[in-house]
Amino acid sequence: MRMAIGEALRLTLFGSSHGPVVGAVLEGLPAGTPVDLEAVQRELDRRRPIGRALATKRREEDQLRVESGLVNGRTTGDPLVGVVENRDVRRGPYRELEDVPRPGHADFPARMRYGEAFDLSGGGIFSGRMTVGLVFGGAVARGLLSPQGIDVLAFTRSLGGVDASAASLERRLPELRADVLSHEVGCPDLSASKRMSEAIERARKDGDSVGGVIEVRAEGLPVGVGEPFFDSVESTLAHALFSVPAVKGVEFGAGFTAARMRGSEHNDPFFVEDGRVRSRTNHAGGILGGLTTGMPLVARVVVKPTSSIAKEQESVSLSTKSSRRLVVKGRHDPCIVPRAVPVVENLTAFVLADLMARGGFL
Amino acid sequence: MRMAIGEALRLTLFGSSHGPVVGAVLEGLPAGTPVDLEAVQRELDRRRPIGRALATKRREEDQLRVESGLVNGRTTGDPLVGVVENRDVRRGPYRELEDVPRPGHADFPARMRYGEAFDLSGGGIFSGRMTVGLVFGGAVARGLLSPQGIDVLAFTRSLGGVDASAASLERRLPELRADVLSHEVGCPDLSASKRMSEAIERARKDGDSVGGVIEVRAEGLPVGVGEPFFDSVESTLAHALFSVPAVKGVEFGAGFTAARMRGSEHNDPFFVEDGRVRSRTNHAGGILGGLTTGMPLVARVVVKPTSSIAKEQESVSLSTKSSRRLVVKGRHDPCIVPRAVPVVENLTAFVLADLMARGGFL
Amino acid sequence: MRMAIGEALRLTLFGSSHGPVVGAVLEGLPAGTPVDLEAVQRELDRRRPIGRALATKRREEDQLRVESGLVNGRTTGDPLVGVVENRDVRRGPYRELEDVPRPGHADFPARMRYGEAFDLSGGGIFSGRMTVGLVFGGAVARGLLSPQGIDVLAFTRSLGGVDASAASLERRLPELRADVLSHEVGCPDLSASKRMSEAIERARKDGDSVGGVIEVRAEGLPVGVGEPFFDSVESTLAHALFSVPAVKGVEFGAGFTAARMRGSEHNDPFFVEDGRVRSRTNHAGGILGGLTTGMPLVARVVVKPTSSIAKEQESVSLSTKSSRRLVVKGRHDPCIVPRAVPVVENLTAFVLADLMARGGFL
Amino acid sequence: MRMAIGEALRLTLFGSSHGPVVGAVLEGLPAGTPVDLEAVQRELDRRRPIGRALATKRREEDQLRVESGLVNGRTTGDPLVGVVENRDVRRGPYRELEDVPRPGHADFPARMRYGEAFDLSGGGIFSGRMTVGLVFGGAVARGLLSPQGIDVLAFTRSLGGVDASAASLERRLPELRADVLSHEVGCPDLSASKRMSEAIERARKDGDSVGGVIEVRAEGLPVGVGEPFFDSVESTLAHALFSVPAVKGVEFGAGFTAARMRGSEHNDPFFVEDGRVRSRTNHAGGILGGLTTGMPLVARVVVKPTSSIAKEQESVSLSTKSSRRLVVKGRHDPCIVPRAVPVVENLTAFVLADLMARGGFL
Repeated sequence: MRMAIGEALRLTLFGSSHGPVVGAVLEGLPAGTPVDLEAVQRELDRRRPIGRALATKRREEDQLRVESGLVNGRTTGDPLVGVVENRDVRRGPYRELEDVPRPGHADFPARMRYGEAFDLSGGGIFSGRMTVGLVFGGAVARGLLSPQGIDVLAFTRSLGGVDASAASLERRLPELRADVLSHEVGCPDLSASKRMSEAIERARKDGDSVGGVIEVRAEGLPVGVGEPFFDSVESTLAHALFSVPAVKGVEFGAGFTAARMRGSEHNDPFFVEDGRVRSRTNHAGGILGGLTTGMPLVARVVVKPTSSIAKEQESVSLSTKSSRRLVVKGRHDPCIVPRAVPVVENLTAFVLADLMARGGFL
Repeated sequence: MRMAIGEALRLTLFGSSHGPVVGAVLEGLPAGTPVDLEAVQRELDRRRPIGRALATKRREEDQLRVESGLVNGRTTGDPLVGVVENRDVRRGPYRELEDVPRPGHADFPARMRYGEAFDLSGGGIFSGRMTVGLVFGGAVARGLLSPQGIDVLAFTRSLGGVDASAASLERRLPELRADVLSHEVGCPDLSASKRMSEAIERARKDGDSVGGVIEVRAEGLPVGVGEPFFDSVESTLAHALFSVPAVKGVEFGAGFTAARMRGSEHNDPFFVEDGRVRSRTNHAGGILGGLTTGMPLVARVVVKPTSSIAKEQESVSLSTKSSRRLVVKGRHDPCIVPRAVPVVENLTAFVLADLMARGGFL
Repeated sequence: MRMAIGEALRLTLFGSSHGPVVGAVLEGLPAGTPVDLEAVQRELDRRRPIGRALATKRREEDQLRVESGLVNGRTTGDPLVGVVENRDVRRGPYRELEDVPRPGHADFPARMRYGEAFDLSGGGIFSGRMTVGLVFGGAVARGLLSPQGIDVLAFTRSLGGVDASAASLERRLPELRADVLSHEVGCPDLSASKRMSEAIERARKDGDSVGGVIEVRAEGLPVGVGEPFFDSVESTLAHALFSVPAVKGVEFGAGFTAARMRGSEHNDPFFVEDGRVRSRTNHAGGILGGLTTGMPLVARVVVKPTSSIAKEQESVSLSTKSSRRLVVKGRHDPCIVPRAVPVVENLTAFVLADLMARGGFL
Repeated sequence: MRMAIGEALRLTLFGSSHGPVVGAVLEGLPAGTPVDLEAVQRELDRRRPIGRALATKRREEDQLRVESGLVNGRTTGDPLVGVVENRDVRRGPYRELEDVPRPGHADFPARMRYGEAFDLSGGGIFSGRMTVGLVFGGAVARGLLSPQGIDVLAFTRSLGGVDASAASLERRLPELRADVLSHEVGCPDLSASKRMSEAIERARKDGDSVGGVIEVRAEGLPVGVGEPFFDSVESTLAHALFSVPAVKGVEFGAGFTAARMRGSEHNDPFFVEDGRVRSRTNHAGGILGGLTTGMPLVARVVVKPTSSIAKEQESVSLSTKSSRRLVVKGRHDPCIVPRAVPVVENLTAFVLADLMARGGFL
């Protein structure tokens, strides 16, 4: 089982949901790279459950401790190790799940593959809590991007059937960011945000859950980032994004709508502006042939509705191979989309920094 | 630049569109594995342009030559090398593209990244012709899957705005396969196939192109295939599928429609049938926590409309940084969806065989 | 900079000599593998400086803390994280070295490569202290070997010009082990051990240091372990062993003496004993064609004399490019051979366990 | 089974001794890199059997054919594929070996590991013929080193008990090269060369074989090449060199003699010459902490005597588990040291080019 991603930068996750810690090892940062730990902590704080309506009742401080690789705010050249303690662990509720797998959850195939020794409590390594390491690695890596004028932002584009208006999305990142950070659902359309909150609250009351779509954009990328064919921007970014629990689809630019477009419509015409080659549209999502075009990178992921719901569900006992009704207790978010937003954002930053390092852009 | 994919099985592509050959090296097959070269050749034949309406006028025999690793129809333990010659190469038409990049094509970022030495003729390594190696590797790898009762099939689900009917898709793979192979668009709905052909023909007459959606399914997989977190089935399969030129989105099971579902609806309830745990629905597309559930694996990719179109387009001269009108000559498919079907199918087989080998299932 | 080794088992080191911790992440252990933490701690204790004559005066408890991956003495399937704190860190003495590199040490090339930000205190990641992670990973991995009847032992074969007698080495591992553990130089020839201790003590008094040769043997290996050509037992084991600081040579079986042998002498004749194929001699060191033969694996490494010596040495100021006399202060072993013995032993166990896992032997 | 080496540059071998071809895929060369095919062919010619006294009677043209990646003498950015045909294949003599393994050869463990399907004819992938790919990859890669003033040379230092004189070795590479190339044993001491030839001839007459030691040096390397800890110059170069068939030991600088030196003697004192930091001696072999020091890199490998000898030997029948006398027929070199010289030299160039590319030195 490999828990690592990246080539020039390499991020190895460790820990599990209900063990003493979660964290990650980040290799490949040049010695002397400044790391703004406060900014990293801010990103970690964004993925914590906050607010009554949106969040699990589990409380974690998620205070980052860097155990290696950093002296006086700069990397020393040895691997960066970031650790966050799991303070609020209650193993009890998960015990009963070991024989009766939760529908929509990793329980069943994990039990079949790894047997009873595998620690499924709290989701084990399948838990959303592992994304602490993704945010840590990504937040550090984006410190390599900012000095080059590269900005990355993710936001909730759709949630519980409520879509952000098209108009609200046609803005540059700094403007979008202000709105995204101002409301806990992480959507730049503030009137939609209100309805999204309501959808979450309704799902909670029903013992149910909702999903959504997250969009991530990166601006300021140079032309040509990415490795052709197998390690294209699409391949490497999708590989990473599909590791975020609950993501079931990834698309770039026009994405699935391209199926109904003609080439003359989908092709983005080139023109020259201020001496730089740009395109009039961006159906390519800033990527051609797997390489960045210099236009904004645009990707979207779909996040399925949280599989742990309070409603009674149909399942089976693995030991007796008989039907069972299951009521999942534990503490669960009725919607993880808002918490996944900073994960998608920072993970995207990590992948871009890795590809830039691989390609000699850093 | 890495041209390799896979861990336990490793496939390295070589060649380029307009060089003397294209091919691939396949490492990791156990010595003594039978290889049915005729079956592999049949898969290669499926991706060749065939038929007046659908295809480029470029003609290749695509006769596979295995230069290493095979004696008397069985692997010897050394790497398998498959080579196909490029017989019908005309370099002329591409020369003029070097300064004026084709919209929607890799030309622009590849030129910026690699400079003038990079061989862009015929798309170079960005060409769809590189997929010969994918089909070769995948067709050999599926020889590991068949004895285990695993079947893989891809088909055209949507093309040029024409969708296969839902009813036509609710069948098991052998039945679907018969229809998929009976018409050159590769769609199991034969009445839709006719309209898809017409959409392609209309696009050709207009000097334009159309895209579509390909679905791939795998049946008979054991429970638990895939590596948790970073090398899940979704991550590894998406990584591979995004390497197929023109793919701009990948989704699993309910995919992007999950954004509007509730958990109680999306979760697939478990039940026991003939002593095996199954689920009543398959919104998960046969994957939970990145591992297979034993239900059919279902993935879809969107293929953008071919970027090389005959219509005049707006572009720029990279040397003079001025506007240019571009008419792409060369020989191009108005729709590559049908030819991408066997690529998606065999590449999926490769990824599954690799994951099974990694997980000790083979 | 990658700090990882292994394929099926993967060990990533972190920390540095004078940071808060050193440790490692170990991936790839099957869930449910028993881990005997006391045995692991015993191996860590073996590499600690012990005894007045042999050791640095630096004192570390080296108490292992496993932060992840272990519940009730068995692996959970998520990565194992082992951490040891650096309690006795004094940064002062190293500051002055930053401009005046120590002869025989990594200081000079590390400073040229990584610049001033690179943390060289105590050797940073070049320090022998990083081998804590090697011992941790290897000691855990040998838990996979023991149930298969595989035993690994390293010992001091030569030290400060004193050689163990040939007769003392012609014994099976359990007998050798008893003597190796009974004296702090780790040599199975107890009369040589005494003279080795004296050689170390003389070097200390002279402000100097001595080196030696460590031999490692593994018995009970099945036939065929190793990957042919690039990932042979020799290649992978040498790769690992050369990462142990101060190792400057690795040889197998007859090693460098093979240069003066004839084929008829060097070839090990096969015979059958108790139904198993064995060889009458073992000049191959238990490896043919990169694969194990079932005969004992025999490798030797040379450990150069410790480069940090108290004697005044000739060096240069990197900033002024002028000559400087250097007296290294700090705390240093006059001979690291005895402490390298458990490192070589456990690292060999790690490599063998990894190769066995890769080859399907575990 | 992986047949690949390298990170930034990646070389994948294919083919086998008695298949239709041997060759390699080389990935990672920047587009536009000039490749001097005549120089590459010259290196391939050096490893061919030449001259009555020294060589197998097998005759191969070994004419390199580059099937991909090269246009007008420059790389195109897609993988370079080099192929050499096996023209003179006689499978007969090897058949009988399948049940009776040759002492000192890979036959026994390969048969146990891979079973009867594994192609052992001519040594299969264990054959020295696979080194064609190493020479091809290395000879191309050194094209990256020459423009930086880096020169690599290997030579026979000892053969059949005859040593080159110390004086003959204390010269710079261009002078050494002239002598190395002037006699077929590849030793820079021409009086020793004559005696080495005689030793080979004597061994041939006796139906026996001899081994030797090859030294390789690289001059002109910048300071700091190599990756610390696991991917040091020693680790990566030893990993590669141990893949050369018959190599059983690798040492750097003073190598195994360091075991009897004191630190004050082994440490190389620094001084400044022409503004560059150099060392007065070079016991480190140009490597400290795994990184190059700018002093000449010096490594030595021991090559065991050829295991295929004409003399009758003791072996066993694997099927009947009974004793057998074996006379190896086939065609074999009584000494492969001279032919291994260009392999060691070009492989070293490959590893150095790869490390330089990884470290941003190219």
